[in-house]
Amino acid sequence: MAVIQNVKGMRDHLPTDMMLRQYIVSTLTSISEAHGFEPLQTPIIEYAETLEGKLGEDEKLIYRFEDHGGRRLALRYDQTVPLARVTAQYAGQLTLPWRRYAYGPSYRGERPARGRYREFYQFDIDIVGSASPLADAEIVAMLCEALSALGFPDFVTLLNHRQIIGGIARVSGLSEEAAGGVYRAIDKFDKIGVAGVRNELLKAGVDTGAADRILELVQIDGSADEVLAALAQRLADDERAVAAIANLRSILDSLAAMGVPTDQYRVAPRLARGLSYYTGAVFEAITPHWPEGSLLGGGRYDDLIGLFAGRNIPTVGLAFGIDRLHDVMLELNLGPRPRTTAVAYVTLFSGDYVAASLALAAELRAAGIHTLIALEPGNLGKQFKEADRRGVRFALVLGPDELARDEVVVKDLQRGEQRSLPRAAVAGLLAEALTEQAR
Amino acid sequence: MAVIQNVKGMRDHLPTDMMLRQYIVSTLTSISEAHGFEPLQTPIIEYAETLEGKLGEDEKLIYRFEDHGGRRLALRYDQTVPLARVTAQYAGQLTLPWRRYAYGPSYRGERPARGRYREFYQFDIDIVGSASPLADAEIVAMLCEALSALGFPDFVTLLNHRQIIGGIARVSGLSEEAAGGVYRAIDKFDKIGVAGVRNELLKAGVDTGAADRILELVQIDGSADEVLAALAQRLADDERAVAAIANLRSILDSLAAMGVPTDQYRVAPRLARGLSYYTGAVFEAITPHWPEGSLLGGGRYDDLIGLFAGRNIPTVGLAFGIDRLHDVMLELNLGPRPRTTAVAYVTLFSGDYVAASLALAAELRAAGIHTLIALEPGNLGKQFKEADRRGVRFALVLGPDELARDEVVVKDLQRGEQRSLPRAAVAGLLAEALTEQAR
Repeated sequence: MAVIQNVKGMRDHLPTDMMLRQYIVSTLTSISEAHGFEPLQTPIIEYAETLEGKLGEDEKLIYRFEDHGGRRLALRYDQTVPLARVTAQYAGQLTLPWRRYAYGPSYRGERPARGRYREFYQFDIDIVGSASPLADAEIVAMLCEALSALGFPDFVTLLNHRQIIGGIARVSGLSEEAAGGVYRAIDKFDKIGVAGVRNELLKAGVDTGAADRILELVQIDGSADEVLAALAQRLADDERAVAAIANLRSILDSLAAMGVPTDQYRVAPRLARGLSYYTGAVFEAITPHWPEGSLLGGGRYDDLIGLFAGRNIPTVGLAFGIDRLHDVMLELNLGPRPRTTAVAYVTLFSGDYVAASLALAAELRAAGIHTLIALEPGNLGKQFKEADRRGVRFALVLGPDELARDEVVVKDLQRGEQRSLPRAAVAGLLAEALTEQAR
Repeated sequence: MAVIQNVKGMRDHLPTDMMLRQYIVSTLTSISEAHGFEPLQTPIIEYAETLEGKLGEDEKLIYRFEDHGGRRLALRYDQTVPLARVTAQYAGQLTLPWRRYAYGPSYRGERPARGRYREFYQFDIDIVGSASPLADAEIVAMLCEALSALGFPDFVTLLNHRQIIGGIARVSGLSEEAAGGVYRAIDKFDKIGVAGVRNELLKAGVDTGAADRILELVQIDGSADEVLAALAQRLADDERAVAAIANLRSILDSLAAMGVPTDQYRVAPRLARGLSYYTGAVFEAITPHWPEGSLLGGGRYDDLIGLFAGRNIPTVGLAFGIDRLHDVMLELNLGPRPRTTAVAYVTLFSGDYVAASLALAAELRAAGIHTLIALEPGNLGKQFKEADRRGVRFALVLGPDELARDEVVVKDLQRGEQRSLPRAAVAGLLAEALTEQAR
């Protein structure tokens, strides 16, 4: 007898979990398609060589193995490297700029923890082949739209730019090489606070004066316009920072024109985003109701996607982590929580009335009512109990009396009420009750 | 530089392919939920031990590897063994009978061929924990419903029962052991014809008289009732066959009560279905427009699901092979074929009118119109060309004249027409044109 256990760090999703996950994915799909993004699906397995040499330290987390023909394969680590491969492999069939979305699992051999799994699902949106700040703005707008649609309260999307952090490091007197240590230290700001970051900076060899200048600059706060104005003044001598500020201004203008509510985004010079491949604007959504960290983030990465094609393909995008979103929504009690897919349960009065009940169930389904049918006739009490245990709200009975009167008994298991209705009115009543319940 | 290639036998699905695949999956999801089936998702990776010892010869096709901790893992071969594991592992949380659907990839290290891939997607529906013929009927009804909804012309679902074939072998004078060879020979009927099957039977050690009796019986044809009546007469001495015929009769009665059109199913004693784990009714959908073989099939398998739980859990189900369905639908030109997700493309007249165009795009999306926005202002000709190349039907222009008159220019790229409309009327017009196009 084999072990009866899912693999450690890889989760089974039972129906109630799955229904919430599907709600998240279908919400993201709708928003993506409303913006004209096109779906892409790549295999979960790539040649190991395709993934190697792109992740630095993290490369050791890749699952690698040989197939039956001795080829070296790997489970994908994310959906970004496969996007880079596809962009090169099908260059002739793809029109850039290309908005694509992709949903599926990726794999990392990490130590599993709350919110960190070895199999995890991501929903990626990217605009491939455009350097326009309109593209950055559209991705940020979709992030805000998605979190609003999913019902997240009080979230804020923080915006920054790699060359603002770079400029902060440079005007504080640091060399280009030392700037990397600054990103890493600032990235921990929300976790370790001012004192912690100061310590990290000093450990990275930054002198006290520079560390204090950096800390003062990354803490600039206020409305997006105020922060940008302050940064423009302080970083006026750094050409790249000046261009970065203009880029963020343009993104902010577009967000306003797109109708994104202004309380949903903010400029935060302390936002670093860990991933080394970002080259321009970066962003991250946070909510005070989820103190453990960011919900998700993304940014512009102009070098990675063109890697296989051998040319520059500017790209901006983000990945919605479905596992994280799902865990947080459960915690904050967001989203619909049906216990099952069916809303009606048609009982089987006795063997003689099976055909009549099957016909009733077919009628209800044709009217759009998700309907379960009992599988064993007789013992209505047991059938009601099963319907209730499953979380189906309405149990229906069609026995000899009902058939004679062309009626159906509708039992509301949630409210404990029961009444006999004309058969033709049943679907309408159920639809109405469900609409009311959804309010 | 890494190889720029997907892994052999595992496919990339570019947007136009994906849109058809998503249409198939969403059609199957709707039907499953209308019948009260609940979604389940299990990891793509299982402990190797979980999969081993269940597939006989085919076990060599499993992809196996070790993880970072030296645990023996495997990519799932199908979604049935994981269902068996889940049914045992979460016995306390699941209420039987349980209708579950599952969609995802599985992996087999086979030689790739047309319609056979190493990564393939299946949509499974199963009713776990019921021996009722109503369960078999519901699965067959859903199969017919799905193929109708997907637009398959002239398909027929063939029905048979393992104990009808067993009875045919037994009344022809064969031993229980020889019956296995009969299944395998009959399974090839539609490929190798009568003479071929006769040869196979003789090769399997069946004598000429028995072979001819078998061949006569498996070729009984007619309406479902006629075939069952003929079989009842010829197999009257075989108790298990008599029970099997009664079981099929009950399934047929339910199909009729469920309103499944009678030309969508037939009893075919020649239907064997290769898989050794079937124990009762088996079924398979075919269409004359796809001569290469069956579209898909399934059946009752009462022994496999209880394997991990250590008790009998009768189950009936089937797997829709998404790759096969997709390939056949492409071949037969079925299903919708949009070239992209967007139907409107909002141009950018010039830098000064970007904000106005972004607002227009947001308005259209809010009205349910999937809308792309250009990313570079100016050069309308180039923008029209991009919209057309992408397959977006309508290009919209909002320049100074239009803004002054509160109008929008709508260019139908498909028909080559162009007119100026009041801004408030645009969404309605586009929605109308699309509804008309869908007809």
